[in-house]
Amino acid sequence: MNMTRKKISIIGAGFTGATAAFIAAQKELGDVVLVDMPQSEDPTKGKALDIAESAPVLGFDSKVIGTSNYEDTKDSDVVIITAGIARKPGMSRDDLVQTNQKVMKSVTEQIVKYSPNTIILVLTNPVDAMTYTVYKASGFPKERVIGQSGVLDTARFRTFVAEALGLSVKDVTGFVLGGHGDTMVPLIRYSAAGGVPLEKLLSQDKIKEIVDRTRKGGAEIVNLLGNGSAYYAPSAALIEMTEAILKDQKRVLPSIAYLEGEYGYEDIYLGVPTVLGANGIESIIELDLTDDEKQLLDESVESVKTVRDILQ
Amino acid sequence: MNMTRKKISIIGAGFTGATAAFIAAQKELGDVVLVDMPQSEDPTKGKALDIAESAPVLGFDSKVIGTSNYEDTKDSDVVIITAGIARKPGMSRDDLVQTNQKVMKSVTEQIVKYSPNTIILVLTNPVDAMTYTVYKASGFPKERVIGQSGVLDTARFRTFVAEALGLSVKDVTGFVLGGHGDTMVPLIRYSAAGGVPLEKLLSQDKIKEIVDRTRKGGAEIVNLLGNGSAYYAPSAALIEMTEAILKDQKRVLPSIAYLEGEYGYEDIYLGVPTVLGANGIESIIELDLTDDEKQLLDESVESVKTVRDILQ
Amino acid sequence: MNMTRKKISIIGAGFTGATAAFIAAQKELGDVVLVDMPQSEDPTKGKALDIAESAPVLGFDSKVIGTSNYEDTKDSDVVIITAGIARKPGMSRDDLVQTNQKVMKSVTEQIVKYSPNTIILVLTNPVDAMTYTVYKASGFPKERVIGQSGVLDTARFRTFVAEALGLSVKDVTGFVLGGHGDTMVPLIRYSAAGGVPLEKLLSQDKIKEIVDRTRKGGAEIVNLLGNGSAYYAPSAALIEMTEAILKDQKRVLPSIAYLEGEYGYEDIYLGVPTVLGANGIESIIELDLTDDEKQLLDESVESVKTVRDILQ
Amino acid sequence: MNMTRKKISIIGAGFTGATAAFIAAQKELGDVVLVDMPQSEDPTKGKALDIAESAPVLGFDSKVIGTSNYEDTKDSDVVIITAGIARKPGMSRDDLVQTNQKVMKSVTEQIVKYSPNTIILVLTNPVDAMTYTVYKASGFPKERVIGQSGVLDTARFRTFVAEALGLSVKDVTGFVLGGHGDTMVPLIRYSAAGGVPLEKLLSQDKIKEIVDRTRKGGAEIVNLLGNGSAYYAPSAALIEMTEAILKDQKRVLPSIAYLEGEYGYEDIYLGVPTVLGANGIESIIELDLTDDEKQLLDESVESVKTVRDILQ
Repeated sequence: MNMTRKKISIIGAGFTGATAAFIAAQKELGDVVLVDMPQSEDPTKGKALDIAESAPVLGFDSKVIGTSNYEDTKDSDVVIITAGIARKPGMSRDDLVQTNQKVMKSVTEQIVKYSPNTIILVLTNPVDAMTYTVYKASGFPKERVIGQSGVLDTARFRTFVAEALGLSVKDVTGFVLGGHGDTMVPLIRYSAAGGVPLEKLLSQDKIKEIVDRTRKGGAEIVNLLGNGSAYYAPSAALIEMTEAILKDQKRVLPSIAYLEGEYGYEDIYLGVPTVLGANGIESIIELDLTDDEKQLLDESVESVKTVRDILQ
Repeated sequence: MNMTRKKISIIGAGFTGATAAFIAAQKELGDVVLVDMPQSEDPTKGKALDIAESAPVLGFDSKVIGTSNYEDTKDSDVVIITAGIARKPGMSRDDLVQTNQKVMKSVTEQIVKYSPNTIILVLTNPVDAMTYTVYKASGFPKERVIGQSGVLDTARFRTFVAEALGLSVKDVTGFVLGGHGDTMVPLIRYSAAGGVPLEKLLSQDKIKEIVDRTRKGGAEIVNLLGNGSAYYAPSAALIEMTEAILKDQKRVLPSIAYLEGEYGYEDIYLGVPTVLGANGIESIIELDLTDDEKQLLDESVESVKTVRDILQ
Repeated sequence: MNMTRKKISIIGAGFTGATAAFIAAQKELGDVVLVDMPQSEDPTKGKALDIAESAPVLGFDSKVIGTSNYEDTKDSDVVIITAGIARKPGMSRDDLVQTNQKVMKSVTEQIVKYSPNTIILVLTNPVDAMTYTVYKASGFPKERVIGQSGVLDTARFRTFVAEALGLSVKDVTGFVLGGHGDTMVPLIRYSAAGGVPLEKLLSQDKIKEIVDRTRKGGAEIVNLLGNGSAYYAPSAALIEMTEAILKDQKRVLPSIAYLEGEYGYEDIYLGVPTVLGANGIESIIELDLTDDEKQLLDESVESVKTVRDILQ
Repeated sequence: MNMTRKKISIIGAGFTGATAAFIAAQKELGDVVLVDMPQSEDPTKGKALDIAESAPVLGFDSKVIGTSNYEDTKDSDVVIITAGIARKPGMSRDDLVQTNQKVMKSVTEQIVKYSPNTIILVLTNPVDAMTYTVYKASGFPKERVIGQSGVLDTARFRTFVAEALGLSVKDVTGFVLGGHGDTMVPLIRYSAAGGVPLEKLLSQDKIKEIVDRTRKGGAEIVNLLGNGSAYYAPSAALIEMTEAILKDQKRVLPSIAYLEGEYGYEDIYLGVPTVLGANGIESIIELDLTDDEKQLLDESVESVKTVRDILQ
């Protein structure tokens, strides 16, 4: 029996963190603690209060608070990490990686201190490397440290396919493996609309165009916004994974998972199909790949490893 | 019979406009057109695309597009105006009023051109005066031009009461008349928790404290954020009113309505209890006021008139 | 932290029990175990399977099973009792009470055996007496044995008021005390539409008509159906109370609660306003009553006591 | 622009009809008119009233009424036919077909009289033949007369697959062609869990077992209930199709559609993948079939034709 409310802590109160808090609260998944640094405490409290004030209108009972004190995250069921910096003009990738790595280490230490049994979801980029960092820093078993990329990548893919076909997004499925964005490996033969394989519905050229657009989906939004990056779809993706865990749904969702031999790789966090439930990643689904797919995945792994090797 | 999708246009693609688009889309109220100025077209498209890319994950079928072309708003069922500037340090109130008045006139002209039968909801501040401006500029019957303030004010009030009592926001009701924020007139005797009048549950001091906090609810968020104003609760309020209209719900909600003698006032847009349905404001509910309440409402009206008189 | 799924057991797989299972599953409140007697095991399994087969279409992940084995209810978070017989032509009230009392005792023994920490909700009629029976048989603390009547009575009242006023049911509130049905005590001064007291919106005659119709609301459905009694609204009422408990919502809802001096009564289960949360009835809200209300409530109590005294 | 409420009429107020009304109302798809014969008018009104009385608790604003007067169905957007008799012991199939054919003709005449532009969904068995009857009797264009079978068949299939794999039903897809139940043609190669083809996740034996169970899914429930047939999953299926039409969702759902050459058949109503939107069946998706699949579909068509030929 368990009667107490569930608790979700979100580290990083930028647009993604705040929007994730909003979606989680709307779904009444539990109470939400939005955390940012002491110098951002007031804006964090402001966002949380604004969300809380929407509750009577939208009809949800979740509590939402803002804080810079990790003590408030005590006994979280799920902790989502969106903290970290975005790459700025003139910043080298190594600088980005090293800066965010420091953030991950510091944040993870606090999370683990107050919620030693929680499950951690990581969004911070470069997400494969940052999930690896959190895993190592947490000392958690691998199933309780999970990265997000594939839910977002397939959401974009599905959006573009539904638009191209004039169909509901509800009936379009997508499937990706490997790294996030540029190095993602789409498995078109496992993507469908209403169960019908895409290859029967769209030309090879159109599929290629959609795959390319999906790879660059993050950059497309960055370019349009001019000053910032996507947050609606990323936060929706995080909350879908959170819901699968909190409700023990056994959803089949792509996650960035720690591999120990699966797909032929060792000691790496990589995007693979997983089953998400109360224990975090409850299993990894292994698929036979074609030679082409395997080659693409190898390249993706090389790219992920290159970043990982910058980690200190 | 009506088979086509409903259409909601939102003028102003700032945080409130974008969040309103997100909530409307999640609720599958219809397709959403997010509109901003030509110089902001790309960010507007970026926000709309980001929202659209969350659809496969959140499971909604509404289309969301961004544009600077009012032609895209053609035949909207509801148009929401969030456009306009916020008061900046050093700006006089008259400057604010006159600037936003110009924005309202220009925006209304475009709305009316493409959706002569639509219903317009106004959020832009000072909202009583801006709703009046839109009414005059539109030439619409009064029931089709509506301002928002009371849903937000009562949402804040309910949040604070629920917190003070440790109860669900679902069971707390609030009731306000008059202007937005500072000059709102709370009717405590019509506010309750689970049907029990607040006066039986909270001390007069605590109620006064909550009323004061509600009056300054917008400023509280502005002060916390440091750089910006509330958008979650305001957009939720707008969409509750939109839903009441689109679904013809006959909701009893406080609206800024045009008065022709109700409550003893003429030719003024003022916050009063209304019934919202397919025709917009379908009726205004008139209540007997105590002398104290009537005096507060008179003061609220004076304040609203002072601003209205700046209008050109 | 609590990661496992919540569990709701429903004793009695008639229309109310099955519909309650359906609503709980749709809301993803937890897994549902529908229980009936061994001789009804197959139909119980059939209803549960039919509900389970609607899950892919309606998009819920709750498990629903049918059984006659109480072991399947082990560690339930909430147990709902709908079992028992309805009064048949020629059956004396005493016979009804004594028959259902036996059912309650037998059912409670099994519930307590497998879920010693659960919270029990009782619907079986006469509900005040049956809740008392379950309380005594369970040995549970009073806050964990709760009867349902007021949520249903006010739902009917709100439906009739909304219809009379042409308003949304969302904005109409009602308030009752005392026994279920005939002996309920409506507190009209605490009932409102959009916060406006009903007495300002409806004539005394119309209000009286609505109160009378509400009192006989169960009989109205029985008479129309010809062969059976209401189950949609009763099961919705049960699940609203269940949700308040499982999500620890601190809802202010009327419950049949055990009184120890509240409202001046002792050792009786009676309908009163309560706060429902993770601990069951977390508090009873006491109100000052007018002399008329107090007299009606006294009569209601007498009626409840008369039935209780039949209990053996 | 369209501001008025949508309207759904449901002919036949048995368990399926009433449950469909309940689900449609909960989803606020529009107002619901539940229709049955004059001799059943009171029970029909009783069920509708009971559903209406659940609205304040479940929070929906749809109106639900019961009637035996087709005038109340005037200008429906969608009409669902669940009327007709079930096959009883000793009744020949020809008797069943001829009896229900008469019901269809009589019902259709009334529907067309009051809602000449509506879209009709048929559930009555034998559904392929009854949809054909309604099509002929209505004089409607083919896209506005649609039968339900595949949504239900795949719902059952998905339930059994999800259970076998221990996965969420949300991530399991199924695909069927042809007649309902016994003669359905499952396309296993288009069925997946999380995008992964079933054939990689389940043994051929297990898949065969699930297909067989799905074929007999209706009979399984009938046998368990002992006295009645399934209604939760069938009504959920009907409302999913209704929602796709009312919200113009362009869902890819299996429908019983009138074929004019598609898949090589003429003048027959058969289960095929379709796109459902505001115009009803907006397109039929044609797939290449393997020889085995084509042979199974031929057999299914023969079976459907045999029944159709009983029609007078």
